[in-house]
Amino acid sequence: MPELRHDPIQKRWVIVATERARRPSDFKIERDNKGNGNCPFCFGHEGTTPPEIRAFRDPSTEPNTEGWKVRVVPNKFPALRIEGDAERAARGQYDRMNGIGAHEVIIETPHHDKDLADLPVEDVALVLQMYRERLLDLQNDPRFRYILVFRNRGSSAGASLSHPHSQLIATPITPRTVAIELESARDHFSLKERCIFCDIIAQELEQHSRVVAADEDFVSWCPYASRFPFEVTLAPRVHSHDFGTMDNEMTMKMARHLREVLRRIKHSLDDPPYNYMLHTAPAYHLKPRRPGYWATIEVDWHWHLEILPRLTKTAGFEWGTGFYINPTPPEDAARFLREVQI
Amino acid sequence: MPELRHDPIQKRWVIVATERARRPSDFKIERDNKGNGNCPFCFGHEGTTPPEIRAFRDPSTEPNTEGWKVRVVPNKFPALRIEGDAERAARGQYDRMNGIGAHEVIIETPHHDKDLADLPVEDVALVLQMYRERLLDLQNDPRFRYILVFRNRGSSAGASLSHPHSQLIATPITPRTVAIELESARDHFSLKERCIFCDIIAQELEQHSRVVAADEDFVSWCPYASRFPFEVTLAPRVHSHDFGTMDNEMTMKMARHLREVLRRIKHSLDDPPYNYMLHTAPAYHLKPRRPGYWATIEVDWHWHLEILPRLTKTAGFEWGTGFYINPTPPEDAARFLREVQI
Repeated sequence: MPELRHDPIQKRWVIVATERARRPSDFKIERDNKGNGNCPFCFGHEGTTPPEIRAFRDPSTEPNTEGWKVRVVPNKFPALRIEGDAERAARGQYDRMNGIGAHEVIIETPHHDKDLADLPVEDVALVLQMYRERLLDLQNDPRFRYILVFRNRGSSAGASLSHPHSQLIATPITPRTVAIELESARDHFSLKERCIFCDIIAQELEQHSRVVAADEDFVSWCPYASRFPFEVTLAPRVHSHDFGTMDNEMTMKMARHLREVLRRIKHSLDDPPYNYMLHTAPAYHLKPRRPGYWATIEVDWHWHLEILPRLTKTAGFEWGTGFYINPTPPEDAARFLREVQI
Repeated sequence: MPELRHDPIQKRWVIVATERARRPSDFKIERDNKGNGNCPFCFGHEGTTPPEIRAFRDPSTEPNTEGWKVRVVPNKFPALRIEGDAERAARGQYDRMNGIGAHEVIIETPHHDKDLADLPVEDVALVLQMYRERLLDLQNDPRFRYILVFRNRGSSAGASLSHPHSQLIATPITPRTVAIELESARDHFSLKERCIFCDIIAQELEQHSRVVAADEDFVSWCPYASRFPFEVTLAPRVHSHDFGTMDNEMTMKMARHLREVLRRIKHSLDDPPYNYMLHTAPAYHLKPRRPGYWATIEVDWHWHLEILPRLTKTAGFEWGTGFYINPTPPEDAARFLREVQI
């Protein structure tokens, strides 16, 4: 009998197929051409991107030249524009505003063929430090309500370039998915005076069947109501609402943990395409402007990273309902991920 | 400057790229192999599907033989099972129930290579009549909260068989997307005592810039905050909450309208993959059980069909935020669809 499972944070039901469960080898992985001729993110091609916003680089080198370790540039084809004001307005029944925001590319390494899973831990930590720097910088812009850091790996996960990179989009609205998560967390807190994520982490550690990796500081697990096979959530064990408050020592620990999880996914599933998205708290500065709404953000939000391997296609049922059919029970997925040799 | 647009029904913001707008010829259409060797939905292969639930067929023929026009069979690999009870239960923080439901396949025509857009209007009407019959039948089962009829066309839209068919899934819960739409419609009605869809249809007909096709009974338009390029919504002009109440005359009129819209999409976009989903009101029988919740369903819900051509890939940004980047302004899409020769 298939099982219906409910995600208390996303308020979403998922169908988990418990019969004929699909194993890692049952998924067809789409392969990319990884040729690096003319890659704009490689050493020596710095002039082909827009000028860099920030880079960790050898202090003896000039901006927009070789010698960097992590480099941030504006997206050449931005979804949103940095200049201007929102100019909110009604259009009859509808609402509109200008598409202002930031859209940046974080080039994670000069190595075209090394994914995050293959880099040394220190280099992964530099990428995470760059996420933090860009988040803290953009939080100063009062026009932005939310800043999303995300990563598309592989063309079927939406990556248009194969050179390892993340992206960041700052938006003048709170996205719906985040709004739903915030609402759930807030409802839970007002009922129980506890963080819903802390409660979930405690249950996952106790049951252990869905845990992929756990150390003193971080835990990764396949969510009870995973909408995709081999979906993983990573979160700090100690309550923390804002990724931007993490110090360098914790960043290094997270780098070690994240790298391990990405290697488990890579080796279990033959290097699949995936997306990950960092769900950190909305920008601080909004607090004084909407006190009732944001007052409890420090206690009811808990930052986390969602990792979604792209193994199945979404079709009419998913688009029509917002609920998903997952052919691999998360307990099975977690066992495969735990047991794989990395 | 890109524009942010808000969908008042789905409570979702969309980024509409107004610069470098993509035209129909800018999208790469994935082609399927349409070979029909051993197609289980073709004449003569009726024995390879589970036994039929219902068919419109020549009265001189036997069930599960040739001679049918539209044929409904259980899905051979159902996402949900028809037998059993929900057995709702808590699992710590989480909720679960058995995956009970119906999962049926509506084989629309014996012709392997004729899509809905190519069939005579009378044959399209038979498909719609079959939707209605199956909806009315399954609404009698008190275990089901929602019945979704949907259609996946083309393998990149999730169709595993190329023979024209629709599917139906009855679920023991109200899906999140439907719940959000219901809530918006209800909020609007309680504020204004008017149907939100009726208000939107009136605005679309008045502005006309997003209308794709309109006749006395039906209107199709590209939604103001379309999340996908060339997305189209079809709805009856006169308020009606339940697709199942449509009589045969209206079904024939809808068939003519739907066929025209599908032909416009087919000819504008070189026969693209697409999904469509019928959003009709939740099943009637729930009314007495949850009176407060369903009391106003007849006045605040308005059935509609969402048609989503699959031209772009969703990536980390969309999964992480639930908001979408649409590279073709709906006004442009509607003009292309209106002006194409069919």
